[in-house]
Amino acid sequence: MAVQPRRVCLVGVGLIAGSLGLALKRADAVGEVVGLGRRAEQLARARELGAIDRYSLDPSEALAGCDLVVLGVPLGSVRGVMEQLRPCLDADTVLTDVGSAKGCVVDDVEAALGRFPTTFVPGHPIAGTEHSGVEAAFATLFEGRRVILTPTADTSDDATASVQWMWERAGAEVITMSVEHHDRMLAITSHLPHLLAFGLVDMLSRAPDHEEILRYAAGGFRDFTRIASSDPVMWRDICLGNREAVLDALGGYRRDLETLAELVEAADAEGLEAIFRSAKQTRDAHLHWFER
Amino acid sequence: MAVQPRRVCLVGVGLIAGSLGLALKRADAVGEVVGLGRRAEQLARARELGAIDRYSLDPSEALAGCDLVVLGVPLGSVRGVMEQLRPCLDADTVLTDVGSAKGCVVDDVEAALGRFPTTFVPGHPIAGTEHSGVEAAFATLFEGRRVILTPTADTSDDATASVQWMWERAGAEVITMSVEHHDRMLAITSHLPHLLAFGLVDMLSRAPDHEEILRYAAGGFRDFTRIASSDPVMWRDICLGNREAVLDALGGYRRDLETLAELVEAADAEGLEAIFRSAKQTRDAHLHWFER
Repeated sequence: MAVQPRRVCLVGVGLIAGSLGLALKRADAVGEVVGLGRRAEQLARARELGAIDRYSLDPSEALAGCDLVVLGVPLGSVRGVMEQLRPCLDADTVLTDVGSAKGCVVDDVEAALGRFPTTFVPGHPIAGTEHSGVEAAFATLFEGRRVILTPTADTSDDATASVQWMWERAGAEVITMSVEHHDRMLAITSHLPHLLAFGLVDMLSRAPDHEEILRYAAGGFRDFTRIASSDPVMWRDICLGNREAVLDALGGYRRDLETLAELVEAADAEGLEAIFRSAKQTRDAHLHWFER
Repeated sequence: MAVQPRRVCLVGVGLIAGSLGLALKRADAVGEVVGLGRRAEQLARARELGAIDRYSLDPSEALAGCDLVVLGVPLGSVRGVMEQLRPCLDADTVLTDVGSAKGCVVDDVEAALGRFPTTFVPGHPIAGTEHSGVEAAFATLFEGRRVILTPTADTSDDATASVQWMWERAGAEVITMSVEHHDRMLAITSHLPHLLAFGLVDMLSRAPDHEEILRYAAGGFRDFTRIASSDPVMWRDICLGNREAVLDALGGYRRDLETLAELVEAADAEGLEAIFRSAKQTRDAHLHWFER
């Protein structure tokens, strides 16, 4: 198995896989980038934009000769797609994905293939925007960003090295950790915030005068709710894919809101200020990590 | 009483009053901008930055000859400051404030002066950043932004016209509405989101591995929590100043989170997607209002 893949197949060419294709081609990192998907129109557009060299709607045609396959499909489609790919996979084809939750990917791949293959490296680029689709893709999306790989006990070091090499060529910094650790961390910093933002805008949308209320919303509201413009299907899949960790994080947060409500109710100025101050200090002290 | 004030006194020259001073002076809108405060060092800095022409620590000296007084102090200081200003106010000095909640300002002004004066126009510029202090002030902060004035039944039309004139010269669009309507709307679009963001970062800061968790936070988390870098004392005062409307909004939101938790728990894909989709549609449809 080549540590440096020469032909890469992107399965589902949306924002993430499309940006990866653009980045790999800009870096002249691989010989060919092939697109596989269900909609010819979207794949033709991806080729037009330069994210892929050619495409096919047929898995066996697309995967022929590919040494690395990247699943860019929503989490909810991983199992079905893997079942379709199964007959076309060589024993040494390296596989990876870009899903925001990793435990469910491991489970779905195992269910689709019968066992978890040594060549599968679950992955998650910590990058993206609230937009989706290949039209929103750009070659520098991963520059200076982190990609978390969560190889399982079954994953071979060679497979992990191939995927790491690919992401580094796309400009990213690669880190490895366990599936469980990834899922717990991301539940707090990403999945819970999305749920909270969707929830707030949904609550607002049910107010009879929500049009007027939104008219007087300012920059704070705009930024706080930016992630509520994200793809509903993708985030439905993430929340359900990482269900237990999301429920844990949401439960902790709901207990915190109960405390906050009690402090406001009791007009406890000191208690409120202490919480606000601790939050500001934590955020300001770590700004440099996420402003990059 | 002049509709166009010639000498303006800024009481407390921080981000908002400082930016107002810069804007009025850039527009050459008034003859003189005087600063009044407790800290000579901060006032000297405000003069250096061009936000005020001169300053004093003495209310009677600062207010002499001023036809418009703008309170730029935190909500929690309004009552105490008005008690100090009381002996120095002429019957026709127009007064306004910039606080993010208005019911508590009306109550505090009434308590300080014995009755709510016809010359007081409660106001709230929908502008600001997560930074504070005169160092963060800039002349264009109010350009294209909305300022909400909430004149009471006692407030004279002339006083309202003076304050409106001032904000328009600073580049803002002025809207008037009732105190109650303002406080309910802002509780939802501003006060609640701040409480939620402070709460999330505070929860995170109590996790033993919060340093590592924050290391993998991405742009979504950064934007969602930007407002948690806001001034803790200011937001403590706002949450308590607008206590009832904030509790209402928080109560509604907590019920919504209960629903969301039930949907995740039950793995109700349709139910989750419906909420996420409605939120995205509402936000996308009204983006043009708050992206300005």
